[in-house]
This record gives sequence, C-alpha cells and structure tokens, in this order.
Amino acid sequence: MKHILILGAGMSSGTLIRYLEQQAPAYGWKISVGDRDLALAKQKTNPPTRIFPVDTAHTDQLEAEISGADLVISLLPARFHPLVAIACLKLGKSLVTASYESPEMKKMAEDVKAKGLLFLNECGLDPGIDHMSAMQVIDRIRDEGHRLTGFESFTGGLVAPGSDDNPWHYKFSWNPTNVVLAGWPGPAKFIQCGKLKYIPYTRLFRRTEFMDIDGFGRFEGYANRDSLQYIEKYNLQGIETIYRGTLRRPGFSQAWNIFVQLGATDNSYVMENSGAMTHREFINSFLYYHPSDSVEVKLYRAFHIDQDSPLVEMLEWLDIFSNEQVGIAYGTPAQMLEAILGKKWKLQPEDKDLVVMWHKFSYLDKVTGKTINLTSSMGLTGEDSGHTAMAKTVGLPLGIAAKLILTGRLNLTGLYIPTIREIYSPLLEELSAAGITFTEKVLN
Amino acid sequence: MKHILILGAGMSSGTLIRYLEQQAPAYGWKISVGDRDLALAKQKTNPPTRIFPVDTAHTDQLEAEISGADLVISLLPARFHPLVAIACLKLGKSLVTASYESPEMKKMAEDVKAKGLLFLNECGLDPGIDHMSAMQVIDRIRDEGHRLTGFESFTGGLVAPGSDDNPWHYKFSWNPTNVVLAGWPGPAKFIQCGKLKYIPYTRLFRRTEFMDIDGFGRFEGYANRDSLQYIEKYNLQGIETIYRGTLRRPGFSQAWNIFVQLGATDNSYVMENSGAMTHREFINSFLYYHPSDSVEVKLYRAFHIDQDSPLVEMLEWLDIFSNEQVGIAYGTPAQMLEAILGKKWKLQPEDKDLVVMWHKFSYLDKVTGKTINLTSSMGLTGEDSGHTAMAKTVGLPLGIAAKLILTGRLNLTGLYIPTIREIYSPLLEELSAAGITFTEKVLN
Repeated sequence: MKHILILGAGMSSGTLIRYLEQQAPAYGWKISVGDRDLALAKQKTNPPTRIFPVDTAHTDQLEAEISGADLVISLLPARFHPLVAIACLKLGKSLVTASYESPEMKKMAEDVKAKGLLFLNECGLDPGIDHMSAMQVIDRIRDEGHRLTGFESFTGGLVAPGSDDNPWHYKFSWNPTNVVLAGWPGPAKFIQCGKLKYIPYTRLFRRTEFMDIDGFGRFEGYANRDSLQYIEKYNLQGIETIYRGTLRRPGFSQAWNIFVQLGATDNSYVMENSGAMTHREFINSFLYYHPSDSVEVKLYRAFHIDQDSPLVEMLEWLDIFSNEQVGIAYGTPAQMLEAILGKKWKLQPEDKDLVVMWHKFSYLDKVTGKTINLTSSMGLTGEDSGHTAMAKTVGLPLGIAAKLILTGRLNLTGLYIPTIREIYSPLLEELSAAGITFTEKVLN
Repeated sequence: MKHILILGAGMSSGTLIRYLEQQAPAYGWKISVGDRDLALAKQKTNPPTRIFPVDTAHTDQLEAEISGADLVISLLPARFHPLVAIACLKLGKSLVTASYESPEMKKMAEDVKAKGLLFLNECGLDPGIDHMSAMQVIDRIRDEGHRLTGFESFTGGLVAPGSDDNPWHYKFSWNPTNVVLAGWPGPAKFIQCGKLKYIPYTRLFRRTEFMDIDGFGRFEGYANRDSLQYIEKYNLQGIETIYRGTLRRPGFSQAWNIFVQLGATDNSYVMENSGAMTHREFINSFLYYHPSDSVEVKLYRAFHIDQDSPLVEMLEWLDIFSNEQVGIAYGTPAQMLEAILGKKWKLQPEDKDLVVMWHKFSYLDKVTGKTINLTSSMGLTGEDSGHTAMAKTVGLPLGIAAKLILTGRLNLTGLYIPTIREIYSPLLEELSAAGITFTEKVLN
C-alpha cells in the first residue's frame, strides 16, 4: 500500500484530493492531508483519508509525517518548499509541487538525482499545463523541421459568464494577493520581433493586446514579469518574439490602471492609521486636497474620466467610495485594496469560475518558407466555488503526476518541470480525458 | 593654531574652502583638505592649505588624519558619515556635515554629549538653510502668540536666466543621480488641511503647484518624499498642513513625467546589453514594437503628445532620439538616463546657477483670529561653475558653523541640527551679510 502525503488543504486542493480519493481503492493508496487549519483539512477530505496538523515551525513533526510517506505533494505557499524539499531529500521521498522551481530547489538537483528521487515542480496550471501544452506543440513544430520564430502565451483565471454579475467580469478564483500585486513593482520584460522590450509597471495595464478564444469570447492580455526566462526553459534561444501574459476580459486593465496610478497597489509601506480608515478615506488619501469637491469628483477629474465612461460604473460597483471601514490594521495600500476588493470579487458558493489559456506559435514552414501563425487554446468552466476550474487545472496535473510516479509509469530521477515529452505526453493525455483539451487553429 | 580638517573636495566644496582660506590668517587656522582624488583636492585649494588622500577603506589612515584636527567638516557622500562620526567620537573631535542625521548618527547622541563634543548635521542648504530660515520665522510667530496652522517649504537648484539656453530651464548644479531618482520609488507623504495624503511616484510630477518668487519669476513645485518627519524636527505637532517640495521652472515636471511613465528612471534592475545601446535604442526599449513607426512617433503617440506641444522640443533638445551610444555598461535605466542628460544639462564653465527657496507660513493671528499667509523667500545666483550658488549655500553654512565653533561662540555639546536659535541666529546673520537673504511678504 502506497502512502501519498498532501501538504496544504487550501484553495486548489479540493479537486486533487477528490481525484486521489476516487482512485485510491483501485490502486491501494493511503492518503494523508495536512494543513495548519485542521478543520479545513477535514472539510476537504473523506474517510479513510487521514488528516494531520502542519506546523512549518516544527520540522521534526513535518519530517515524521514525511518519513511515513511514499510520495509528497505540496500545496503549501511556495516559500515553504525549500523546507519541504530538504526534508524529502533527507528522508528519500519524491516530491511534486505546482510552484516555481526556486533557486534553493535548483541547488538540490544533483542530490535529488544521486538519491534516485524525482522532484517535479511547476506541475499545476500556470506554471504547469502552460509548459505541457506549449512544449507539445513546440516539439511537434521542430520535429516537422519548421523554424519557430515566435511564441506568445496567456493564461487567465476569471469568472464564468453564467456567474458574471459585475462590470469587471472578474472574481477571485486564486490567491487575491497575487492578483493585486500582479506586475508590481515591474518591469515586464519580453522580446518582440528581435527587440528587447521593457514595460514599466506604470504602463503595464495600458499596453494590452486582444485575443479571441473560440467558445469563450474576447479577452485582453497584459505582460507577465519576465518572459525572457522561458527562452532557457523551453530551449528557444534566438527566438524573435517571446511574450507571456495574463488574460482578463476587455476593459479590466484600463480600470485596474486607475488603482495602479493612484498608488493603491503599492506594497512597500504601511499606511498611517489604516485600521480606522474607510474605503472612501483610503481612496481620498491618494487624491489632491479640495475643501468641497467630493472624492468621486476628484478621482474622475484626476484621471480625466468622463461621467458616462464605463470606468465610473466599474469603480462605483466596487464600493470604493463607501464609508465602510476597510478593517486592516497596519496595512499597506495593496493589503487595504485587497480587503476592499475581497468584499465584492468573492466567488459565491454556487459561482462557477473560468480558466482560459491561449498560446500563439509562429514558425517558418520548411516547405513554403512562409510564416504560419498557429494558436492553441483551452477553456474550462468550474463546477462551483469548491471545485473551481482553477482547483481542477492546478490539482489534476499534480494528481496525475502522482499516479504516474506511484505506478512506475514516470521513471525519471532528478529535478524536473513538465517541459519534456516523457512527462507532458501522459499528463496531457489524461487531462484531455478529464475535459482539459486544447484546440488548434491556423490564423489568417 | 586650530586645525580644520575637510573631508571631500567635490561639487560643493569650492566656496567652503575659499571662505575658510580667506579667514584662516586672521584666526590662525591651519586647513587640510582630503579627497580620494588628490588632483581634485589640489585644484580646489591654495597654499598653505594642505591636501591629503582619503581612502575610506583604510580607517587607520582616516583616524590618523582626524586625530590631528580640532574640527572635522565632512562633505563625503552621506553613507560614509557613520564611519567618520565613529572616528570623531573615538578621537574626541567635533564634526560638521551637510547630510541628514542618520539613524546611526542618532544612536551616538549620548556619547557625543558625554564627551563634550558637538556633532552638527544638516548644516548646508537643504537640509540646512531651510531649517534655519524656517525656524526663525516659526519661532517668531510663536513668540508673538499666534497659532501656526500650515507650513510649506520648497527649494530648487536650477540654472540662472542668463545661462539658461534650453527649453527645460534646467542644468545639473548638484548630484545628478539624486535629480534623476527624485521621489523614486515613492510615495510622497504630507498633510493638507488635516488630511494625510500620499502621492505615488506615478503621479508625483502631475501634482505640482505654482509659486512666484519676487525677482526670480515663476516656479513649480513637486512634493518631497516624507514631509511628516518635519513635524518632529520643527515641533509642529497638530499642524494642519505640512508640505515640502522641490522647485523647477514651469513645464519641467510635465516633461519629466514622460521619463517616469516610460520607466526610464527605474533604478531597480540592470538593462540587458546596456553597454551597446544608443540613446534611441534606450528609449525604444520602453515603447511598443512597430515594424515601421519611428521611435519619435511611438513615444508621442503613447503619451498623447501633440506635434506642436512644447514637450516635443524639450524631448528632442535632450538628444534622446540620437544614434549616439549611451556608454554605460551594466546600467540601470536611471543610470542610462543620467548619462544621456549629463551630456546636455552640464553646467558650462561660465554658466551661473540659481538657488531658490520659498517658505509659506499660515497662522491664526492672536488678535484678529484671521489666517495670515506669510511667505519668506531667497534666491541666489552663482558666480560660475566653480563657485555655484549651490556650493555657496551648502558651503557657507558649514564654514560659518566651523568658525562659530572654533571661536567659542557656539558652545553646545551633543548632536544637533540647526533648528535651534543658538545655532540659526548667528548663522543667518552672517549668511545675510554674504548676500543670502530672505524676503518676507504677506499674501492676499
């Protein structure tokens, strides 16, 4: 009987746990789920899954848990992964995470290999499915002898149309802190047609591009932090265009830019008397003083927003002008803003979220010498707020990878991310069977 | 015979050295000037002033120099002042600087007092003359029994009208790095009419105000970093408005904001291949890709700049679109921009600079109960690029303070900045005799 240890029972754990619990009888797995919040772990699991408390301050207890496992899957915040990895290395256990491969993790590569273990990181949605689905097409283009000249890739976690009841067409389906701090403090770096480009944070949400995804409608994308690192990750040396970004519904970025320009997404300092501030006072603290003009008028004037602009409805819908207290003591502007947004952008129990991913590959056809633009896209709607599309797209790749490892179908040892065929092929195959499928289309 | 040791022979040292050399025979002073660049020290001094090399990496040599002095004046970059202060404390020497009183310096306060020494910091222009001239008026208003409700203070180092040959009406008369990084990364904090206000860096140069200074014309001011700290410095607890800022000629800030919005003042990352970049490529790296549009067109379009806007002339005058190499290896955007600006904003040998300072005090008259708005302003034109108004206004307060200390007219012991009467009264008196005078005016 193989024992799978899951660390973390947060937002993305639901579908992973359900997947493993469903398969456990057939494969004879024992499952343990740990979280610092034991009630949360209880709520996310069903017997005979065992639950246990996780306290990252007590490594001996963590090590005791890991020592009894055959495989560890960690959904803990990324900052705990070096700690978990060190314990796994010491106790000879393989590890799967959906977090970025950190520099600390990279340093362990040789030791992981020497011990015959597999540490598989970046095996969720983004990073995760983005790597797999992009590399499958990139490898195919190369196998066919064409020359890849450009790669663009965008992912977004949004709200499904049926649950979309707000003018931002957005709700939090993922860590809200990361959403508020997206791109801060910048810049974004990428290459376009051979030119290295920087977008400062001040311009990030004004340098968007649009894309249509069949069956899911129109989106806009803004650049992610450092697209250049994907040159090495995907072996794209010499590529003329590389650009990665985040998808939102059209109009989101222009409105979000108001918060950026206000300074409301700054996470570098704590605001004075934040504990007593109302939403309205928070916004007013970033605006010029005027003895009689309202906060609304000052904001619209400062940013040249016409009274009939859609921005007015978007901003007012968020209740940013209300006299309600924010309720955050010693908050940075970003923390205050997150608290305000959380009241409105919360996924309700019955709400369905939406995950969309869109890649564009440009290559010179080896026969005609002409440039072909090929897109590959995926969209997935969630079941409800417990089994979101986000939880499914993060959790299923982890669960499938765990199954492949425990059943001996993934025999690699060392430190990996799912950019290689041996990993992405079986993973994408089962993801497709679970409804996570990519559709290709040649443009023009 | 008293021995004055001056550390640093840079931009602001010329007038200080000349002042002390002129007075040395009468007071029987011996003067030594040290710099890491001995040629620079030689150029700034006249016999019998002694010159010596300064190497801040060798504290024993620095201590040997300090041990032979009666008073130390340091013009070294502020980061070296803890080092100098520790040596002075150890060797029992008083110290005068024009730098901000650092936290490290503050920790020495008791020891300085116990040893019977005086460490006088912030004794240049800004900080320095700003403290003295403001506190003289603030103390007088209080002595007369009125209630101070507001204090605004702006200082600027610019180019004198006769030497002003560019559409920015600006040249570097001071550390260019600090000019390029002014306000970065923000925010500015201040209080206006009882409301705490934050201005993010993205809005700093669009939230200016105008002021006229008799005899010197019109200026615009943008907010300095943290005006709140002046509440404690000046004992202004409960004041309803406190705002400090920097003066430029009207139009400067709007144009400078283009660099801010471009991301060209970012000092947080090193640009790829900066060593090979031309001015034009530097600017282009922040702009969207277009197969045929020129860099100029892209910039003007991105920032909605009309072809007949004064911004066009300002930007083109700086040669930012030229194919000349910037010439900075491993440069941050801010370092690259500084290098480009340095080619055009350099003070030529015959150029005269201009220093302006403007305070506004608002108080409730104790008799009438009405608000009185009183301004106090000063302007000073430099002699040439060697004896700038900047060097004079930084150097003279240091020199006068040195004289007051050595002649026993300033008998304080402990850590001070020139906000108290015993210090500012004799200093302002001699500064006035040297042509640095403030003119008061009641507004309305």
